[in-house]
Amino acid sequence: MKHLGHLRSAFAPDSVAVVGVGPITAGRFYVESLIAAGFKGTIYPIHPNGGSVSGLRIYRNLRDVVGPVDLVISCIPARSVPGLIRECAAKHVKAVSMFTSGFSETGSQVGRELEEEIVRIAQGAGVRLIGPNCMGIYCPTNGVSFVSDFPRESGGVGLVCQSGGNTIYLVRLGAERGIRFSKVISYGNACDVDESDMFEYLTEDSETEVVAAYIEGVKDGEHFQQALSRLAARKPVIVLKGGVTREGARTAASHTSSLAGSEQVWGALLDQAGAIRVNTLCELVDMMVTFQFLRWPRGRRVAMVGGGGGASVVATDACALGGFSLPAIPGHVSKEMRSVLDSDTGLILTNPIELNMSPEVSYKMAKTMLEYEGFDLMLANCVFGQAPWPYYDTWVDMFCDTVLKIYAEVSKPVAVVTVSDLIDQERHFAALRRRYVEAGLPVYDSMSDACLAIDRRMRYGEPRSGSKVLNK
Amino acid sequence: MKHLGHLRSAFAPDSVAVVGVGPITAGRFYVESLIAAGFKGTIYPIHPNGGSVSGLRIYRNLRDVVGPVDLVISCIPARSVPGLIRECAAKHVKAVSMFTSGFSETGSQVGRELEEEIVRIAQGAGVRLIGPNCMGIYCPTNGVSFVSDFPRESGGVGLVCQSGGNTIYLVRLGAERGIRFSKVISYGNACDVDESDMFEYLTEDSETEVVAAYIEGVKDGEHFQQALSRLAARKPVIVLKGGVTREGARTAASHTSSLAGSEQVWGALLDQAGAIRVNTLCELVDMMVTFQFLRWPRGRRVAMVGGGGGASVVATDACALGGFSLPAIPGHVSKEMRSVLDSDTGLILTNPIELNMSPEVSYKMAKTMLEYEGFDLMLANCVFGQAPWPYYDTWVDMFCDTVLKIYAEVSKPVAVVTVSDLIDQERHFAALRRRYVEAGLPVYDSMSDACLAIDRRMRYGEPRSGSKVLNK
Repeated sequence: MKHLGHLRSAFAPDSVAVVGVGPITAGRFYVESLIAAGFKGTIYPIHPNGGSVSGLRIYRNLRDVVGPVDLVISCIPARSVPGLIRECAAKHVKAVSMFTSGFSETGSQVGRELEEEIVRIAQGAGVRLIGPNCMGIYCPTNGVSFVSDFPRESGGVGLVCQSGGNTIYLVRLGAERGIRFSKVISYGNACDVDESDMFEYLTEDSETEVVAAYIEGVKDGEHFQQALSRLAARKPVIVLKGGVTREGARTAASHTSSLAGSEQVWGALLDQAGAIRVNTLCELVDMMVTFQFLRWPRGRRVAMVGGGGGASVVATDACALGGFSLPAIPGHVSKEMRSVLDSDTGLILTNPIELNMSPEVSYKMAKTMLEYEGFDLMLANCVFGQAPWPYYDTWVDMFCDTVLKIYAEVSKPVAVVTVSDLIDQERHFAALRRRYVEAGLPVYDSMSDACLAIDRRMRYGEPRSGSKVLNK
Repeated sequence: MKHLGHLRSAFAPDSVAVVGVGPITAGRFYVESLIAAGFKGTIYPIHPNGGSVSGLRIYRNLRDVVGPVDLVISCIPARSVPGLIRECAAKHVKAVSMFTSGFSETGSQVGRELEEEIVRIAQGAGVRLIGPNCMGIYCPTNGVSFVSDFPRESGGVGLVCQSGGNTIYLVRLGAERGIRFSKVISYGNACDVDESDMFEYLTEDSETEVVAAYIEGVKDGEHFQQALSRLAARKPVIVLKGGVTREGARTAASHTSSLAGSEQVWGALLDQAGAIRVNTLCELVDMMVTFQFLRWPRGRRVAMVGGGGGASVVATDACALGGFSLPAIPGHVSKEMRSVLDSDTGLILTNPIELNMSPEVSYKMAKTMLEYEGFDLMLANCVFGQAPWPYYDTWVDMFCDTVLKIYAEVSKPVAVVTVSDLIDQERHFAALRRRYVEAGLPVYDSMSDACLAIDRRMRYGEPRSGSKVLNK
């Protein structure tokens, strides 16, 4: 059994040493990111030339640091890493996270041997290794981060991600959609700490409600299967497998030296463990959003609002193809909805309805519609770029008012689609999406994305006992 | 045979009357849009109160206009439209485009009868009707437009679109991707001019190289089949069918009173005619872009550049699943590529390559790679949001320099993927995408979108004789 306790120190260190803080190097950015994330412990920048960085004294050597060091971040060249790990062992450092690349992922014998050497040194001394060739740890609760623009608030999603770039992308994309994270790890070559260790760790982590993972390959299949099954029995787990094709697997091998495994094997393995499999990074974020923000739908009968004209036709097709029904509005409900109009225009009310009346009328009509027992959930289709003239700019804002008001008053699930393809309208779009997100609504980029995610959520079923996922 | 000649007058009118230009009405926006589009003919705004709009005299009545009027745009209530059509008949107006709604799409008997009445009057007098319940015509060559932000330059794509909102969205989305249009029509209820008339018209239109269509339903199936087959024999035709599900068909019925027809019938019909069927508005734009900008690929062997790390793994999977191969770089090519490096680092060059070297080295390596006979096309994966630190901002710009330089020097096809999900980086993203677009490159939102579009293009085959599509 490896030291999961030391992993705890990596996520909640009292002190961090960043080794390799020369001018314009990754090391400097690590120091800045820790400061930006509000790290409360001690930061020891290390570089042979000494000096200072961000107001902190630079130590010439890890040995010069007097107090204990929990976590070391390595930003020095690969050939110098074995020496560093020996120093870490001598200083009883608990974990070393290695941004340094140039190990087994190069495919060279030198790189492979170097990686074997650091593993040997570390395991002999009980030091846990993260990476190499990775970004490391983001844990906002404890002010640990490797990027200065990640949110400082923490949340319920744990992210286990083999690729550094994908980690950054997923955290940023998730953040824009309201997701906040408990523990995030980019673990690269996984020479020691791997996805299975993290699954074990997150199974017990009380802060983590849902786990998302991007995995390129697994070295110990049996451990993986056990760890995943145990985790999935307690919390929803969503997995994107990178390198599912022959070509993708070759790319994964040169990225993190992973043996990717066949598509079939992975499909069966994830199914059996009860994990949810997705196919793209966006789908991974959609599932985080759905688990965190979608109220539980009792059925698949959709009341759709918004859109209008051709946008509604297209959205209705996407919704029906996605496995949901859009029942017609029955006469007695339609009569009640019409009663709020000034005059009975003989207007036939269909599902979807456009809600292009005054705010008060739109609100009453949509609320009456959603409250009818024949509908299980509302999908709000907030369409940009279809209006010919400026008045529409106010319309999307009024539509947002209406949806938020209904969401606050009706307990049924509501999801929002905000289509964002037009760059020109990006600023207005961003402001509006933020309003939905801040109100706690699940927001998606297209009707088919929304339906795919909600369908997966419903197939997964209501949260199991033991899970902390709230049915908000 | 209906008067296709009158359609020509609708796209190239010498004079346009806009009827119904009260304060803050659609009529005013139509007048402003004609002026913004640089319409060279005479504009006659009409409203019973007289006055002026945008510096133009408002006539109290169509009868008060002395000279001939080619095109009338109706922005008055439905109940007044029959009277207007009678006046148009008396004045020998060639076409009337009706923004006015409240006809058969309401599902009411009144609406249906009103629509029948105007058709009767117009057909008796040889006046062509566009709509009702539509945006009408955009023809930049002749300065005709209904939205002020559409491009003033014209191009090779004809667009036939039953929904006004979707028309606007498609033109704007296309414009951002470099598409310019020959003739665009939003034709709503299609009480007279329909998709088949437009197909016949565009078959002969020398300005139109490719035709894209969004169709909710067809009334005369036989005419449609003939017109589509004739058009598709001459020019590529891309069709999105709205209302393919039962629910979508019901929505289409209340939108443009269309009988939608079953999915199977439509699939068979489009296949048989040789049209390309797509499933979303974005796919429709992707195909316009591909036909207009992608050089013809001789095969499916992709040289991928850019991305890096996990982004490359994911992109490689998407590309392989999309039906393309990513052959390994053979030893002699890899040796030549390495020769531009300062030292032989023993670096193993894989496909995809990241191009994170200096601009000069990146350029030489990627050019050597693409020139190798074993590659048919290059896919450039321009990834945003994956970089931890600011230096990357310059990297995407350098990457763009490299791709544009290679595109100018190598005759093989190059396509660019710019992933745009992060709102935060939207401005930089937009500027960069504009550079690719202005250089004439096809740009897509994701690797799977790119592969789907290129695959469809290749299945379609090289442009047929008689087509004006250039293999740029």
